[in-house]
Amino acid sequence: MVQKWHLLYEGKAKKVYVTNEDNVLWIEYKDQATAFNGEKKAAIAGKGRLNNEITSLLFSKLHQAGINNHFIKKVSETEQLVKKVKIIPLEVVVRNVVAGSLAKRIGLDEGTPLDKPLVEFYYKNDDLGDPLLLEDHIAILKLASPEQVSYLKQAALKVNDILVSLFQACHIKLVDFKLEFGFDSEGTILLADEISPDTCRLWDIHTNEKFDKDVFRRDLGDLTEAYERLLQRLGGSVECTK
Amino acid sequence: MVQKWHLLYEGKAKKVYVTNEDNVLWIEYKDQATAFNGEKKAAIAGKGRLNNEITSLLFSKLHQAGINNHFIKKVSETEQLVKKVKIIPLEVVVRNVVAGSLAKRIGLDEGTPLDKPLVEFYYKNDDLGDPLLLEDHIAILKLASPEQVSYLKQAALKVNDILVSLFQACHIKLVDFKLEFGFDSEGTILLADEISPDTCRLWDIHTNEKFDKDVFRRDLGDLTEAYERLLQRLGGSVECTK
Repeated sequence: MVQKWHLLYEGKAKKVYVTNEDNVLWIEYKDQATAFNGEKKAAIAGKGRLNNEITSLLFSKLHQAGINNHFIKKVSETEQLVKKVKIIPLEVVVRNVVAGSLAKRIGLDEGTPLDKPLVEFYYKNDDLGDPLLLEDHIAILKLASPEQVSYLKQAALKVNDILVSLFQACHIKLVDFKLEFGFDSEGTILLADEISPDTCRLWDIHTNEKFDKDVFRRDLGDLTEAYERLLQRLGGSVECTK
Repeated sequence: MVQKWHLLYEGKAKKVYVTNEDNVLWIEYKDQATAFNGEKKAAIAGKGRLNNEITSLLFSKLHQAGINNHFIKKVSETEQLVKKVKIIPLEVVVRNVVAGSLAKRIGLDEGTPLDKPLVEFYYKNDDLGDPLLLEDHIAILKLASPEQVSYLKQAALKVNDILVSLFQACHIKLVDFKLEFGFDSEGTILLADEISPDTCRLWDIHTNEKFDKDVFRRDLGDLTEAYERLLQRLGGSVECTK
């Protein structure tokens, strides 16, 4: 039986605890929303539970589809167990539709569909503002080898394929999302962190209604309500795909 | 005999005139310095002459070394003739040493040497602040085909090899520089725009004394004096390499 021991690290949206097992961490999702590198911040009741439910559901689905990942199991409404990994300091972003920082960077309208999925790497570095990196920058900074970068790209595209189908079955468009990867104790690269409406853009396929953190970033309505509706739709999808 | 006709376009540092010949433009270098996307600005006597001299000298050298470029000839102290091209809206930046925006982006100290030259593409778009682009962004924006991007990269690295040697002979380190390319009337890609201390970072090999626009950007001293000293050193190199 895994026991929750001391706090290892507190992030913006979750707390990470050491356990009695060397390679197992205990994650607690917080009722907190942040945006713009922590500049906007709010306590939002119920958010921790929703993100824990959604990320657990998605990582289970990805596991079933053959994607190595850190998720072990949900242990309470707001808590889960994961394998300990050493995080690679790269945010791997996959985009199917132009939105957010891509719209600002290249000057195309939000909502413009992309001919094929786009993978971008950002440097996980708050002091530098998480800048976009070229693969050559990653090499200069020795954040990952070219082979690892190529693996991350392929893995991210595979995750995209799986998630696009899964959300499509719920009539939701997967606009873009951010992944993080890490090395487990044996040096294998595992998908890690979370996949939740905090880290994805998810729009209703017909109305473009938003089920993601842009509701908070852009003051578009009640965040918990949006995440709750997303979870309900995903629940439907889980039934459908059994 | 080529005749200067009406003004076609006035940029930050030069004026471009139509001539009596369809495929020839008349360029006049201005005594004006700008930085930070035009936010910092000053009239600087002698700058136009120096940039015209230096860019003419460097484009001649590159022509001799087999680099297709737009330069035809110098027609006065501040003026030159060039072939008309349709500019590809990409700034092709080559870096040998970390400086400027790269230092800010990846958090390495200015002056850190790179193991091999780095090529970056920036979108020539003042409204968007000339953002860094991935090759995938260039494809999405249809700014150039993947084959053209690959050609630009190879051409930029060849220019770098030639310029590094040329400046090294003058005891100057070519830290980084920006190139622009365009299509001539037959669809051939030519190196265009200028190569001058406005578009390069050039440091004394021993003292790191700066001979480039950072003198203006960072208020390090007299810009004309710095450019004049650079031209003198290059003159020396021209003698040496005859």
